[in-house]
Amino acid sequence: MIPITAGKVKTVFETDNPNEVIIRYEDRVTAGNGRRELWVEDKGAVCCEISRSLFNILEREGIRTHYITMPTQKSMCCTKLDIIPIEVVVRNIAAGSIVRQTTIPEGYEFEFPLVEYYLKDDDKDDPLLTEERIAVMGYGHELDELDYLARHVNEILTGVFNDMDLTLVDFKLEFGYDANDNLVLGDELSPDGMRLWRDGVSFDKDLFRKNNGDLLGAYNYILRELV
Amino acid sequence: MIPITAGKVKTVFETDNPNEVIIRYEDRVTAGNGRRELWVEDKGAVCCEISRSLFNILEREGIRTHYITMPTQKSMCCTKLDIIPIEVVVRNIAAGSIVRQTTIPEGYEFEFPLVEYYLKDDDKDDPLLTEERIAVMGYGHELDELDYLARHVNEILTGVFNDMDLTLVDFKLEFGYDANDNLVLGDELSPDGMRLWRDGVSFDKDLFRKNNGDLLGAYNYILRELV
Repeated sequence: MIPITAGKVKTVFETDNPNEVIIRYEDRVTAGNGRRELWVEDKGAVCCEISRSLFNILEREGIRTHYITMPTQKSMCCTKLDIIPIEVVVRNIAAGSIVRQTTIPEGYEFEFPLVEYYLKDDDKDDPLLTEERIAVMGYGHELDELDYLARHVNEILTGVFNDMDLTLVDFKLEFGYDANDNLVLGDELSPDGMRLWRDGVSFDKDLFRKNNGDLLGAYNYILRELV
Repeated sequence: MIPITAGKVKTVFETDNPNEVIIRYEDRVTAGNGRRELWVEDKGAVCCEISRSLFNILEREGIRTHYITMPTQKSMCCTKLDIIPIEVVVRNIAAGSIVRQTTIPEGYEFEFPLVEYYLKDDDKDDPLLTEERIAVMGYGHELDELDYLARHVNEILTGVFNDMDLTLVDFKLEFGYDANDNLVLGDELSPDGMRLWRDGVSFDKDLFRKNNGDLLGAYNYILRELV
């Protein structure tokens, strides 16, 4: 298989079908835009399986996702997307960069979830975008639909995690267009790209960022609750 | 005199009048949020004099500014303000951080000037703010007036600099409330807080940031043209 792109924790391969790709989830966790990384056996398979579960739940609720099938334990066959280079972040509670970049304290509960946009560009450290900047960059017409989809996903996922007594603090989404120009949810849906809290304890990548707990144990717990 | 705050290039002193402060312009230039700095003889006086000229021009056009008088060559007596901790940046042409943080190329002329907001907090490196973040921080009700004032100042200053064949690329403003709760333009108005271009040559602090020209010569040129 020919790799198209090798990200920090996933590798994308071409397939014989020009409209499909294989995404392999690597046994790796990174933080600080790749400045710290660690090999974690089985993490790829666990994140792949969690993503499949969450994509399936979203599909049942009418959200178009890129997931097609899982040919191996740690790889997904997905619809090939022309990815919009904007990361969509939904925040229910303040944590992470928004706390470092504002006067908003960690743990602040937003009255309405915040939908924020970041440039997908590791070399620039994924900077925050304003709607005006996005408009000048030529993506202004996408914002209404991205905002709507992100809020819809947030409602569904908040319910899923509430059922396992976890609070969905924030999460990141990526979208793209398929060959028929449908806007489709892509990338990964795992605790690598979200914050999940229970009584002040993290069940997400912050366990690695802050080096204060068993990452794979938490991820496996979520997977067991999901399936 | 008792200093209230000592910034990177200005020191603010109390006076006998509780509604007035003295702002002393220091002979210093800094870049990278103070990570680089240089002593430049006379720069304080030149920036102070340029600021006085520009504040006077704005006052004549109906913009309320904090400037009252200049007791010495390098200090201003100003109305004491309760400063809003948000820096307002107007951009006519893309340069500096917006180029590093987006896909917008340097030199891109905005169809409509961009008014942007940054948290005034050196420790956090003055991060970009979205309107949503500002609203959560409790300053949402100020934005309409700040936007209006910033655009009005931009129109006036663009004309002033066009008259000396310079293009006003971008500039930073700070506002605050006086004792009567009027919104007033504060801080400094000099090439330290703006970009001015002529045929690809800078007449502003980029001469220091990029170490490619005579800063004081350029500032003195602007001062001569103004008075």
